[in-house]
Amino acid sequence: MDRTQINSIHSRCEHFLSYHRPCSLREHLRTIADSEYCDVGRDAYGQGGFVAQFESEIASLLGKEAAVFMPSGTMAQQIALRIWADRSGVPMAAFHRTCHLELREENAFREMHRLDVVLLGTSEDIFHLVEFEALSQPISTLLIELPQREIGGILPTWEELSAICSLARERGIHTHLDGARLWECGPYYGRSYAEVCALFDSVYVSFYKILSGLPGAALAGPADFIAEARPWLRRHGGNLQQQTPSAISAKLGMDRHLPRIPEYVAKAAEIAVALNSVPGVRTIPPEPKTNLMHIMLPGEPESLVKRAMEIAEQERVFLFGGLIQTPEGSRTELSVGDGALGLSGARVADLFERLLQSPMQA
Amino acid sequence: MDRTQINSIHSRCEHFLSYHRPCSLREHLRTIADSEYCDVGRDAYGQGGFVAQFESEIASLLGKEAAVFMPSGTMAQQIALRIWADRSGVPMAAFHRTCHLELREENAFREMHRLDVVLLGTSEDIFHLVEFEALSQPISTLLIELPQREIGGILPTWEELSAICSLARERGIHTHLDGARLWECGPYYGRSYAEVCALFDSVYVSFYKILSGLPGAALAGPADFIAEARPWLRRHGGNLQQQTPSAISAKLGMDRHLPRIPEYVAKAAEIAVALNSVPGVRTIPPEPKTNLMHIMLPGEPESLVKRAMEIAEQERVFLFGGLIQTPEGSRTELSVGDGALGLSGARVADLFERLLQSPMQA
Repeated sequence: MDRTQINSIHSRCEHFLSYHRPCSLREHLRTIADSEYCDVGRDAYGQGGFVAQFESEIASLLGKEAAVFMPSGTMAQQIALRIWADRSGVPMAAFHRTCHLELREENAFREMHRLDVVLLGTSEDIFHLVEFEALSQPISTLLIELPQREIGGILPTWEELSAICSLARERGIHTHLDGARLWECGPYYGRSYAEVCALFDSVYVSFYKILSGLPGAALAGPADFIAEARPWLRRHGGNLQQQTPSAISAKLGMDRHLPRIPEYVAKAAEIAVALNSVPGVRTIPPEPKTNLMHIMLPGEPESLVKRAMEIAEQERVFLFGGLIQTPEGSRTELSVGDGALGLSGARVADLFERLLQSPMQA
Repeated sequence: MDRTQINSIHSRCEHFLSYHRPCSLREHLRTIADSEYCDVGRDAYGQGGFVAQFESEIASLLGKEAAVFMPSGTMAQQIALRIWADRSGVPMAAFHRTCHLELREENAFREMHRLDVVLLGTSEDIFHLVEFEALSQPISTLLIELPQREIGGILPTWEELSAICSLARERGIHTHLDGARLWECGPYYGRSYAEVCALFDSVYVSFYKILSGLPGAALAGPADFIAEARPWLRRHGGNLQQQTPSAISAKLGMDRHLPRIPEYVAKAAEIAVALNSVPGVRTIPPEPKTNLMHIMLPGEPESLVKRAMEIAEQERVFLFGGLIQTPEGSRTELSVGDGALGLSGARVADLFERLLQSPMQA
């Protein structure tokens, strides 16, 4: 089953276990063009227009002095680590071993910024206070990802997170928040984004994931840090001639989805209970704290995807379109958005029971 | 006179000495959304959809095996120089002293890629064969910008350009074309883009300048070179989650403007003759070979801009909105696009004569 067939089936569904009801690129662009934010005017190389206004809003929302809009988080985080490393004179950071910088950026922080890293945690768990306490190597920056995406979206408790960040400050270590999915952490911590971000010196947030904007990110922090980030943005080639369409789509995504994050997180909890009730199925974590979890299934990816497509065609419910093989079966990532709000836990459990029946009986 | 006032006057004009008749962001986004190219579908992190199709088209137009779409030329050129330097083991390039990498990228090629450079040419002229012949230092890459933007858009003759590139190849030096304004060189060389690009190992082209697309660029070259460029794009943070809107706007800009480049270049020649007929005014170069030139004016920037705004309000012709002070007066860059096609040389000469009358008489 190829990607084109899967996309075609996806486009005919009504409910989507992961992410939002799809919006075509055409609709997306028209929504941006029709929005009042277009009246604010465009930026020129990041200066003025809607981008400047949006940067102020993001800084305020995250409780930081300043923010800069960027094309990607890959830029934002390398730049943050580079600035903190240059300031402390220690070209070494510490972050979780499944961090985006370690797994998804082709070693850019080493190759382009000559930084090195102490990897923390395990392939199944976040790192804990005791591990960070024991760290004897000098490091400039501790990067924490909330939630830790690659291991199913695990979050530290508020107490442990606060203790880790306090210890970092005591030791003169800068703290940076990888907030690619920060928006989704609000309900668990029960605190404002600004309160969560107050634990950190700098913060990156993303606009194209749960907020479903065009590609875009922001880096926020002290005013002098953001002023230093701008020439680094230019060095990376990210000071684009204009970013207004991306910034408007980010703002529209915030308007639409931020108020609904608690619904997505609550629905994820309901779905997790349902999934864990199906024999052979389990979620990581067993009780998600955000809208994110991994689903572990018995069986081979290929036959499970084929069966999921049959169910999608019959029921107009899209469960998943891809799986990764694991030693014990198959694994997929689930991020609950508005596409699943019309699905009850009972319906999800029923569909996964059917999924695991032999495809031969279909 | 601030930027907001100038933009407001600009928006009420009918003719524009530089660039195209303005198109609002709203119109621009709607044109993309309405285009048939939206039916091809979107890319996912640069894979598939319209981006893949467009990359093939660009490769073919430039006569190269492959091309990769990128958010900016800043990325494209650093990546090209880095790959060629790594291949030859010589972390040294040569380019003109007004090259974008030297003036506009915050030393990124040094800071992020540990490359060094031999600067060629002067602040008034391109570098010539004799200077390149005399270069004894080992270099990995010779970068040539066509036309040389910062000095008014000067172009080498075809014979000299060919001789320089041949000599580079004889010496085992890679050649890279900074084609930010390559589109505008077609009429002067009277050759296809592929013929011009055949002189070079790799080529960067831009889509948001004369083509008036959203920000975007392409790097083209041998297939193995482009395959190597893709992980570098990821390292720079330029492998965005989707680039389809930018790629579609680039394609629409090519459809609209590439066939008209000869008109723009011919109009630029007519305007240059007119400007050089006005006492006190001269253009660099005196006889533009592309649509690009610098205009040198007697007087201070501030009073000239004020006077240009009076003319814009009276005549609905926008001459310029900004000037740079020089020892002899003021200087501005002119890129002729469709905004000037309705202006005769005589009209332009008349308006510049009025511009240089004392503003007190206005």
